[in-house]
Amino acid sequence: MKIIDGGVCAAQGFTAGSIRSGIKDSRAQDDTAIIFSACECTAAAVYTMNRVKAAPIYVTMEHLENGVARAIVANAGNANACAPDGMENARRMAKAAAHVLGVDEDDIVVASTGVIGQRLPVECIEAHLSEIKLTENGSAQANLAIMTTDTRPKTAAVEFTVSGRTCRIGGICKGSGMIHPNMGTMLAFLTTDCAITHEMLTEALQDNVRKTYNRVTVDGDTSTNDMCVVLANGAAGNALIEWQDEDYQAFCKALNEVNTRLARQIAADGEGASKLVTCTVSNSRSEEVAERLAKAVVGSNLVKAAMFGADANWGRVLCAMGYSKAPFRPEYVTVAFTSAAGSVTVCEKGAALDFDEALAKKVLSESEVVIEVNVGEGECCATAWGCDLTYDYVKINGDYRT
Amino acid sequence: MKIIDGGVCAAQGFTAGSIRSGIKDSRAQDDTAIIFSACECTAAAVYTMNRVKAAPIYVTMEHLENGVARAIVANAGNANACAPDGMENARRMAKAAAHVLGVDEDDIVVASTGVIGQRLPVECIEAHLSEIKLTENGSAQANLAIMTTDTRPKTAAVEFTVSGRTCRIGGICKGSGMIHPNMGTMLAFLTTDCAITHEMLTEALQDNVRKTYNRVTVDGDTSTNDMCVVLANGAAGNALIEWQDEDYQAFCKALNEVNTRLARQIAADGEGASKLVTCTVSNSRSEEVAERLAKAVVGSNLVKAAMFGADANWGRVLCAMGYSKAPFRPEYVTVAFTSAAGSVTVCEKGAALDFDEALAKKVLSESEVVIEVNVGEGECCATAWGCDLTYDYVKINGDYRT
Repeated sequence: MKIIDGGVCAAQGFTAGSIRSGIKDSRAQDDTAIIFSACECTAAAVYTMNRVKAAPIYVTMEHLENGVARAIVANAGNANACAPDGMENARRMAKAAAHVLGVDEDDIVVASTGVIGQRLPVECIEAHLSEIKLTENGSAQANLAIMTTDTRPKTAAVEFTVSGRTCRIGGICKGSGMIHPNMGTMLAFLTTDCAITHEMLTEALQDNVRKTYNRVTVDGDTSTNDMCVVLANGAAGNALIEWQDEDYQAFCKALNEVNTRLARQIAADGEGASKLVTCTVSNSRSEEVAERLAKAVVGSNLVKAAMFGADANWGRVLCAMGYSKAPFRPEYVTVAFTSAAGSVTVCEKGAALDFDEALAKKVLSESEVVIEVNVGEGECCATAWGCDLTYDYVKINGDYRT
Repeated sequence: MKIIDGGVCAAQGFTAGSIRSGIKDSRAQDDTAIIFSACECTAAAVYTMNRVKAAPIYVTMEHLENGVARAIVANAGNANACAPDGMENARRMAKAAAHVLGVDEDDIVVASTGVIGQRLPVECIEAHLSEIKLTENGSAQANLAIMTTDTRPKTAAVEFTVSGRTCRIGGICKGSGMIHPNMGTMLAFLTTDCAITHEMLTEALQDNVRKTYNRVTVDGDTSTNDMCVVLANGAAGNALIEWQDEDYQAFCKALNEVNTRLARQIAADGEGASKLVTCTVSNSRSEEVAERLAKAVVGSNLVKAAMFGADANWGRVLCAMGYSKAPFRPEYVTVAFTSAAGSVTVCEKGAALDFDEALAKKVLSESEVVIEVNVGEGECCATAWGCDLTYDYVKINGDYRT
């Protein structure tokens, strides 16, 4: 497997582009993107678990019922959730894209992100979508167009081999606030030229989302618009993946690499974040327990605030594990803080260690910090990603709408 | 029922006081309190649900096994959780109090609050506890001595009638950060001179904590040290409450009044809070559903940040309800923001209303704000309390320990 450039256009046969329709009226930014495949794709998606779902989620669910798609159209600036004419406007958006691309309306994936509760000015999209230029190096442009409070685009792609043929899988995503595990996910769009059946693609995606995006938390708020879609057009010419064989494993490994890279980028770019906080839980009795513990630690406001202050307050790590409802024995737990600046073990077998406070401060002042928890019970492990809680998170969210 | 002064000394036969032992070394504040009953009390308590429990929780559990107690000793500045010699030091603290008060060690309730993971300097308490002066107007002093990041003491008391006799119930509590529903609770100490059996007292407390303290959230972090204890000494001379009769109902009503007042004070004094945020959910299919929805709303970081910014971002209210996992129909939901400055309905039947933004800003700028949610399905309701998320929360928790 090789890390490559190109995002959603890394795979053969995919183009992308964006336009400025004027939804984000005051900002001189593109706000609507299209990702397009030259030929029909097998498609799989996971969606937000929020009971309140945005209209584009329902429209996309309908369109992907047959497991086939050709393109994704996505806008930023308006979530089209709890909004007047929501379903109608999501359909009009799909229709506009279908018209421009010359494909069927039900081969279009529709996604929206932005403010909740205001009518999507779909007329803007209808008026300007035909101006779009789709190119083989359009991924970065599409990536910028789907950003809201994101401070940077998020992309990843890899090259891998299936039955002797080189395949590629790549993606872009957005997500900064209203982000919490146990969801479909933020907006993540993936493309691959690997030939794979709908069943296998769906299984691979569902399984992997659980271990990547669903282990990210920024603020504990699961969005109404989360969606992760993968389009597979088979252009690489590999033997079709139909079973859980070696080829399927190779595909899953590549998918995991791309999704992990995207998930980490989302955590690192959490609203107001000054650092990426990773929690690894090892030697757990099961992966589920390790996952729950790791998520509780990166999700704790108190841990997040301590990370902002570079304060080695490990009591908050144990406290968060304690209320996670996952079983473990406090008296077996060892905690260390690690970063590029070094590593400090702060607690061993559930009790305080004398540690070098100056070194701990240095370790926690880096832009990537790992909280290593060893629960001393078994052989399973899991990793979760989050960020620190800063003044800027409060600032960004104190007055987002107006 | 009548609201009265006196806190934990409002009930007959109770005295309280505090000393400065030096646990909080740099601060000229009392740090250890005692609440004492002149005669034996029936006692009931609820504790934190956190798997990591502080040593004083275990010692208090042991001491209350027989349902009887005489006094509470509590310190601030050190939680005695995950700390060296934890159990031994919690026992030494109880022993010191028993010695000073001339009662049995196992009639002492022990509680601690403060930083996790550092040894409790119990020698300080042992050296100074005999200096304590217990008086009938010592409640305020004891209240100040149990504060950590609290900015103000929290107290409530009422007078009520049981079988023709005047009874009193009062309490003090502390709690500002690491506060989240589904726990025993913060530290809350209640006293009553009402005669009531251990069984009835336990039932009344457990039932009421669920509807009061457990509906408060400040930051989603359930503490390792939470405890709510009630001591009933029977000094009022009422006929003993042994059954779920009228007298029991009168007691429960009084208990609920005191606990609700204390719970609201905790929410209003949440770390960094600038306002009390109450969410009422009405017309729900069940109280449990209403409770879960209300808690999700006041617990959402995004809602809390919007309240700080006085931003009528009701989409976040629906979003939080949506991920609460409680059943409701988004298309039936009406949301209004209410305060002393007026009321603004912002969403009706799940869709946006045109509302007066200037008035909404004024409503949300008050120090007490109510988010009124009507789910339009049934006849049940519930209320939860929280506070806004401010720069000061981040500041307080970015460097609490050092």
